[in-house]
Amino acid sequence: MTGADASPTAILLIACPDRRGLVARTAEFVAARNGNIVHADHHIDLSTGLFLMRLEWELSGFELGRDEIDTGFAPLAEEIGADWSLHFSDTRARLAVFVSRQEHCLSDLLLRQRVDELRCELALVLGNHPDLEALAHSFGAAFHHVPTEAGDRAAAEPRQLDLLREHGVDVLVLAKYMQVLSPAFLRAFEQEVSPRQLRHAGRHRIINIHHSFLPAFAGANPYRQAFERGVKIIGATAHYVTEELDAGPIIEQDTVRISHRDTVDDLVRKGRDLERVVLARAVRSHLENRVLVHGNRTSVFE
Amino acid sequence: MTGADASPTAILLIACPDRRGLVARTAEFVAARNGNIVHADHHIDLSTGLFLMRLEWELSGFELGRDEIDTGFAPLAEEIGADWSLHFSDTRARLAVFVSRQEHCLSDLLLRQRVDELRCELALVLGNHPDLEALAHSFGAAFHHVPTEAGDRAAAEPRQLDLLREHGVDVLVLAKYMQVLSPAFLRAFEQEVSPRQLRHAGRHRIINIHHSFLPAFAGANPYRQAFERGVKIIGATAHYVTEELDAGPIIEQDTVRISHRDTVDDLVRKGRDLERVVLARAVRSHLENRVLVHGNRTSVFE
Amino acid sequence: MTGADASPTAILLIACPDRRGLVARTAEFVAARNGNIVHADHHIDLSTGLFLMRLEWELSGFELGRDEIDTGFAPLAEEIGADWSLHFSDTRARLAVFVSRQEHCLSDLLLRQRVDELRCELALVLGNHPDLEALAHSFGAAFHHVPTEAGDRAAAEPRQLDLLREHGVDVLVLAKYMQVLSPAFLRAFEQEVSPRQLRHAGRHRIINIHHSFLPAFAGANPYRQAFERGVKIIGATAHYVTEELDAGPIIEQDTVRISHRDTVDDLVRKGRDLERVVLARAVRSHLENRVLVHGNRTSVFE
Amino acid sequence: MTGADASPTAILLIACPDRRGLVARTAEFVAARNGNIVHADHHIDLSTGLFLMRLEWELSGFELGRDEIDTGFAPLAEEIGADWSLHFSDTRARLAVFVSRQEHCLSDLLLRQRVDELRCELALVLGNHPDLEALAHSFGAAFHHVPTEAGDRAAAEPRQLDLLREHGVDVLVLAKYMQVLSPAFLRAFEQEVSPRQLRHAGRHRIINIHHSFLPAFAGANPYRQAFERGVKIIGATAHYVTEELDAGPIIEQDTVRISHRDTVDDLVRKGRDLERVVLARAVRSHLENRVLVHGNRTSVFE
Repeated sequence: MTGADASPTAILLIACPDRRGLVARTAEFVAARNGNIVHADHHIDLSTGLFLMRLEWELSGFELGRDEIDTGFAPLAEEIGADWSLHFSDTRARLAVFVSRQEHCLSDLLLRQRVDELRCELALVLGNHPDLEALAHSFGAAFHHVPTEAGDRAAAEPRQLDLLREHGVDVLVLAKYMQVLSPAFLRAFEQEVSPRQLRHAGRHRIINIHHSFLPAFAGANPYRQAFERGVKIIGATAHYVTEELDAGPIIEQDTVRISHRDTVDDLVRKGRDLERVVLARAVRSHLENRVLVHGNRTSVFE
Repeated sequence: MTGADASPTAILLIACPDRRGLVARTAEFVAARNGNIVHADHHIDLSTGLFLMRLEWELSGFELGRDEIDTGFAPLAEEIGADWSLHFSDTRARLAVFVSRQEHCLSDLLLRQRVDELRCELALVLGNHPDLEALAHSFGAAFHHVPTEAGDRAAAEPRQLDLLREHGVDVLVLAKYMQVLSPAFLRAFEQEVSPRQLRHAGRHRIINIHHSFLPAFAGANPYRQAFERGVKIIGATAHYVTEELDAGPIIEQDTVRISHRDTVDDLVRKGRDLERVVLARAVRSHLENRVLVHGNRTSVFE
Repeated sequence: MTGADASPTAILLIACPDRRGLVARTAEFVAARNGNIVHADHHIDLSTGLFLMRLEWELSGFELGRDEIDTGFAPLAEEIGADWSLHFSDTRARLAVFVSRQEHCLSDLLLRQRVDELRCELALVLGNHPDLEALAHSFGAAFHHVPTEAGDRAAAEPRQLDLLREHGVDVLVLAKYMQVLSPAFLRAFEQEVSPRQLRHAGRHRIINIHHSFLPAFAGANPYRQAFERGVKIIGATAHYVTEELDAGPIIEQDTVRISHRDTVDDLVRKGRDLERVVLARAVRSHLENRVLVHGNRTSVFE
Repeated sequence: MTGADASPTAILLIACPDRRGLVARTAEFVAARNGNIVHADHHIDLSTGLFLMRLEWELSGFELGRDEIDTGFAPLAEEIGADWSLHFSDTRARLAVFVSRQEHCLSDLLLRQRVDELRCELALVLGNHPDLEALAHSFGAAFHHVPTEAGDRAAAEPRQLDLLREHGVDVLVLAKYMQVLSPAFLRAFEQEVSPRQLRHAGRHRIINIHHSFLPAFAGANPYRQAFERGVKIIGATAHYVTEELDAGPIIEQDTVRISHRDTVDDLVRKGRDLERVVLARAVRSHLENRVLVHGNRTSVFE
């Protein structure tokens, strides 16, 4: 991974139909304006014929100002039929974390943010239970308690959206939130909340951690399901949230071996270590603009 | 793992309702007859209240002859309500391998058997295509071609059973066989073929390798399914075959990381390395009588 | 892992020359006094001829009181020439954590202790820098700052030992402490500090996390060493501290894949996730009395 | 990985001092001549300031013939100070495998070559013992027995080099060869044997599998060393051979967990599964021209 912290960079994520000359054309767009490319990676998805690319270059010395790059790149993008988005390495996304009662994923994110592993500002923590308020506060993070008792999701979601708007949230992380967000909520967050991010990247900005190796054990109680099926390995999956439960594009997964000695409680405990690492890796990749979604699949550039 | 090869051992696999004194009672059964225990491992499945044990001791010096152990242990087994089976480390199971056209799992088993990793005799290889005959022969293994064209499973299975009977087969390994065995076949192999193995162990003697991390991607074309779902890790599963497809007790699983660069063909290739190792581990555990099935779960003692 | 929390258990760790009847004799010691064994595992180290066992049974219903078990077991122990130690599952060890400036291992231990993953009380955190005082306090843990500037280890160690004595510390965890403890300190902590733990278990009560896959890259700057050697995988090692630097008995290790894109800083970041998990697993195994040291090797019973 | 088999491609491996415009310049070299890039990946090694790139494009439609590319690229290469090599995806390297008595790595390579996982021709197998002759022959591979008794390495090596010359060998794989090659042999194979491969790629064409996680346990008997050190994980390392034993650039490594129950023999057995997979991955990467050596490190492009 290139150390993007030294000097700010611009990042283009590009998806378009594959054809001759795309690497050269896009690299030339940067080089002709005196940009120094620090990361250029692409691959061609043979199943769809899509050319998928991540291009990163230093802003220092580049002949276009930040505000001019969009306009500068648009003609080429149109010519090649690209779905694309532009990002800057020194833009810190504003993150909201939705939690319930379990603390391990939230505390993990808080710790990583404190040692600057995550390129973001932690705008607020929002719990449907008040349990983790003290934890959030001990890291200097704002905490709001919005209960979601059975039946009142209708009441909770507008309040949640208001808070996301107030805090200018770009990215939402469900850190063991254990609640399903309504399609209306998803659309509202996607379309209204944050006009700063348009196009591609704006469409997938909610990351969930599911405590199984999806698509195995979707739905409730995956560790109990895993125990009852008698698997020898358990997993965790970080994915973007879509309207179809547990079926959004997968960003990261990992697994760990278990044995017949492990009870459901042991699976839960071992799973916690997986969940927090998998979620952290996914959030980090997203915040570094390394994730390109095409269809229901992701390319995660390294 | 204790080196059981030095001198022959007896192995008891025991499952019974948990209660006070079982470890001492069973160990005492061996010790009182001057047996030297080389492996004793048990655990209690809290979800069912079952006590599950593997007990292995040297036959040398043991006061009961091989033929007397069954009778000798029966009273205790009855008292504690045990489902149990008795095995001897120097009994080499007679293995049949069912194959189709892919060679990697068969060649792996042949190689391991040649360097004596597997405690078995390879009685025959049975292919529904003739492709692997030369491979089998190059290792000195018998090969029979029994076609299973669409619709004639009814014709193939009696022929297969005849061959298994003729060769005195104890254990059947489906090494990328790609065909579903009928319930009638399963019952016939279980009940009729090999009267040498009674009770517990006799009930699960067919091992299949499935090219996915079950229960994800059961059924056909799991690598394509995995590709389309966009998973970041693929797996393989070795399990006992039951009447319900891909749903039998799991013996062993393993996983490997993939990336967005991998095509379906790459998954197939990477999967081959998983499949053969996972299958070999499962077969080895089975042949060393380390697998105890309870309900749809296995305890694999190490 | 058996759920020892339901009712208190006694645990015997036993090492003795292998001979006939040891499993039965030890199990019988428990069963004859009406003890219910919940975990009995042993193995025979063929390289040394040692019989190594962990035996755990419920105190409820056992005919000997806690104070009588030592005396009750001593005659058998003497007869079989055993090196042994006795533990109780409801005894919470008193833990001290030595830290320097890095917080990830300390915060990980604090979080696990809060959700009750670790069977211990956190007696104190002792830093040679003051940086982590606020973190410790936010979890309600005592913190002491004992500087160890170049040359004054002689001054720091008596102060450290005094604090360990004051707080009745049983187990010392070096959580990225980055300092070498003197042989005099090791002997003092072993012999004087905590007379509650005698015999075997008393001899290894200091656990260190080393940021490499030992024995590769012992000494300073292992991530830089790993980068320069061009390895494709990095690791972390938790081990008991002995007088020989980085050479004590290994309790737990794990590894993670890296790529040519990773800088030394990336290795440090990826290594942090390994270090905290590996250290936590080792501390947990130690606190549950699952680790039996023989020579420079450990058996970790599961 | 892009499927290069569909139509032949050219591959450039480039290492040069990093500077502005390298991605664009190299891509432009291809695009200006109507080449379609199917893989372009680079990274910058910050520790040395080197720009390291792999560039692959379809020959179909490219305006330069195969013989003209060298000359065509040379001016740009000279300008940017590049160390570089040119390869074609449909050139099948001629492989020699040196073996001793153990068959698992050789049989693995033979099997993979048969199912076309490896882009090579197997020119010959050369054993210092005759044991594996039958195995080689059963796959249709030539086998030569050149003994290397104590003291007569001087006699064996000229004979080995003659055979390599006769068979036009490009790449040499030491598949558990267990012998050290002399510096004179290394230089002779590098410089004389195969003039077809010049520059960069010609310098590293001997691949060894070492049965440990280097740099841990270099030298003899690594599994015994690992057992005695009491590690919890073992590994295998594939590396290029250099004059310094076990110290050449690492291409691939992998690890597997072991337990205290494993004897040295168990480590050897588990290690075999690692060795063959790690060696096969390294050979495959080399044959697909994905490995770029710089100093004592490798970049393995995926």
